[in-house]
Amino acid sequence: MKHLLTMAELSPTEIEEILSEAKGFKNGEKWTPEAPKYIANLFFENSTRTKCSFEMAERRLGLEVIPFETQTSSVSKGETLYDTVKTLEAVGVDAVVLRHEHDRYFDGLKDQLSIPILNGGDGCGNHPTQCLLDLMTIHEEFGTFKGLKVSIIGDISHSRVARSNAEALTKLGAEVFFSGPPEWFPDDLVEDGRYLPIDEAVKAGDAVMLLRVQHERHESTSALTKEEYHQEFGLTVERADLMKEHGIIMHPAPVNRGVEIADELVESPKSRIFKQMENGVYVRMAVLKRALISQGGE
Amino acid sequence: MKHLLTMAELSPTEIEEILSEAKGFKNGEKWTPEAPKYIANLFFENSTRTKCSFEMAERRLGLEVIPFETQTSSVSKGETLYDTVKTLEAVGVDAVVLRHEHDRYFDGLKDQLSIPILNGGDGCGNHPTQCLLDLMTIHEEFGTFKGLKVSIIGDISHSRVARSNAEALTKLGAEVFFSGPPEWFPDDLVEDGRYLPIDEAVKAGDAVMLLRVQHERHESTSALTKEEYHQEFGLTVERADLMKEHGIIMHPAPVNRGVEIADELVESPKSRIFKQMENGVYVRMAVLKRALISQGGE
Amino acid sequence: MKHLLTMAELSPTEIEEILSEAKGFKNGEKWTPEAPKYIANLFFENSTRTKCSFEMAERRLGLEVIPFETQTSSVSKGETLYDTVKTLEAVGVDAVVLRHEHDRYFDGLKDQLSIPILNGGDGCGNHPTQCLLDLMTIHEEFGTFKGLKVSIIGDISHSRVARSNAEALTKLGAEVFFSGPPEWFPDDLVEDGRYLPIDEAVKAGDAVMLLRVQHERHESTSALTKEEYHQEFGLTVERADLMKEHGIIMHPAPVNRGVEIADELVESPKSRIFKQMENGVYVRMAVLKRALISQGGE
Repeated sequence: MKHLLTMAELSPTEIEEILSEAKGFKNGEKWTPEAPKYIANLFFENSTRTKCSFEMAERRLGLEVIPFETQTSSVSKGETLYDTVKTLEAVGVDAVVLRHEHDRYFDGLKDQLSIPILNGGDGCGNHPTQCLLDLMTIHEEFGTFKGLKVSIIGDISHSRVARSNAEALTKLGAEVFFSGPPEWFPDDLVEDGRYLPIDEAVKAGDAVMLLRVQHERHESTSALTKEEYHQEFGLTVERADLMKEHGIIMHPAPVNRGVEIADELVESPKSRIFKQMENGVYVRMAVLKRALISQGGE
Repeated sequence: MKHLLTMAELSPTEIEEILSEAKGFKNGEKWTPEAPKYIANLFFENSTRTKCSFEMAERRLGLEVIPFETQTSSVSKGETLYDTVKTLEAVGVDAVVLRHEHDRYFDGLKDQLSIPILNGGDGCGNHPTQCLLDLMTIHEEFGTFKGLKVSIIGDISHSRVARSNAEALTKLGAEVFFSGPPEWFPDDLVEDGRYLPIDEAVKAGDAVMLLRVQHERHESTSALTKEEYHQEFGLTVERADLMKEHGIIMHPAPVNRGVEIADELVESPKSRIFKQMENGVYVRMAVLKRALISQGGE
Repeated sequence: MKHLLTMAELSPTEIEEILSEAKGFKNGEKWTPEAPKYIANLFFENSTRTKCSFEMAERRLGLEVIPFETQTSSVSKGETLYDTVKTLEAVGVDAVVLRHEHDRYFDGLKDQLSIPILNGGDGCGNHPTQCLLDLMTIHEEFGTFKGLKVSIIGDISHSRVARSNAEALTKLGAEVFFSGPPEWFPDDLVEDGRYLPIDEAVKAGDAVMLLRVQHERHESTSALTKEEYHQEFGLTVERADLMKEHGIIMHPAPVNRGVEIADELVESPKSRIFKQMENGVYVRMAVLKRALISQGGE
């Protein structure tokens, strides 16, 4: 049975297989399970975007989606996450997509279930389908990861995506740089030479990947206003002129227009932001298929 | 591509086409898109009734409905409505039904999307599918709009329906009168001779259309108690006896029983209130078909 | 037309028919309505477990489920339950599953609707599908109800299940005992000899049915801490050793691990707790089929 929990567990070959499957779906290939399959999306932390994307992927595969409202669930009566998921298993759900605010919430679950978990994001930890859709978008653009330079800019510490993207990209042969407010950086990253001043990072990247400023976390701790952030660490219109001719702009969204990126750039020719969202559906179709097939019966 | 935003944008011919299509659906005609189509219902303002009706219409057309919870969406993280809808477009949603508390929220969207919006209500402005279901119910009853008299009674100022119904009915050849508490009336309506005392309005109408008293808006501003409103401006049992023999009672619901209408009248022979709800599904099937066909690919 | 409101309304023969139908579904029998059927689940009181189980049952029967959010419904604008259900009837819903915090909420509805209600729980009153799934689990185990002894342990007064299970089991030929904190007991039960000290109840039962301690109701009224409850009235590991060799442990869930039952026992060989959840889906398929067929058109 194949959970999808972290990028670290995937070999380069497995990543390539998933991306290839996703590309197939984008090119119109079809797959639906032979018998009806039931999926529940458990989002204990809000994320309409990721949830909608999974919903679209599930519907396109002809899966039956069982609604599950986490706010009103028995978890609020003190039920453990284990008992909740075990219940879904008992009523016949074939796989769960799970997002939870606790880092590695899945460690207490993964070996005790007979149905796969697809991690839709855990705490400040992992968000493998976001990482896969970023990889797909980059690969679609450049045809390879080898020798590519990717600059990741923003709040590295709190980003689920930054570290796992960096690991995966490095594993696949790309070179990764970071930039952003130094106080938001883990010390090791600042010291290992991969931290670049913002203009250098923008110049260096074949892909310039901006992270969302999470105002809800930082308003009190950062000394910067939104405008100051934009000028010092955001992709301004002027700074975007420093980019390589073939360089692309990426962002996991939702975008703070005028903060990490200038309003005018969001839908500019270099931007792949809405393409990332589009690709997210195909990547999720691929990992859902992978999980359901791994259970056999197909 | 055909949005459905306001009644004003529809010509009499287009209205008749929609009503004819709706009538066909009521008579058992079927239509489903050739390829799967995906719809999202974005209700930023609550309306279980309208939402359920759209859901029924969507299911009857064989559409896939992607759940979208506005309360927990990225809009609460500051995302613009434009970016939210654009995201849905990017993940492959083919049309959105949108209800929002801002008047004409769609002005900033309509020219920038490649998918149609069906307006499920905006602020105190428009609610075209409610209007269309009212028109369908009247037409079903009388076979025409020409020469009909329609009395609209209640809170005209805050009603999405009153003005657009009045415009549409007039355009189609009916004559419209108004009644209700004068302080809830726009000055122009009071002065142009279409305002009638309540008993006159009840006597005049082939259709007597009551509006919901929105206690949540008025409790503090109106000097009338519920009982007083009922006696002065509601359709009491006594007042209903003034109605024409073939006259019908309409109400957009939810009904405040004993306020704008006597409890006993809600399901009386003259009432078309539940028929309006029934017709709402067929009207929504018609406008959904219209929107999806306009995108081509069908 | 066949509502399913209480166990009391079902004859032993009807109960056996439902259980037999449910067993058929468990053995892989299929049934889907000839024309599309639309269901709404109205849970005015939270219960993710029961709702998910109904959703699974509905999907397995190929029914279309119309989402209905009770929190944001017009009920919050003062609409009566009657008008809400009548609206759903008007838009074309074929049956409603309803859970509501008022005891016997259905008395004002059942004779005025043309669509069936399936009671998903009312106040402290009835929860017939929970009762039926308990019966199915017992019958699956022992092949009969005649002569069986069932011990129900816990908060009898506040349990929807305890009394209706007891009535149904007695009607079917089983003998029922009770145990738990005496202050949570109705006087009549304590006095009629069916109340046993906890160890006796555990020894006596072919099925030992534990009820959930509803902390949210009792914290202030009960003098017992969770640990004390577990020692005095819970199924501890030691106490479980008193059970009959063929005895089974049941619990409606969600379980308070370490309160009414020791953590280690929840998935022990004697436990049928997750099997109960599994059976719940089949029982609900059976009663949904029964309700839809009773409307004719099938």
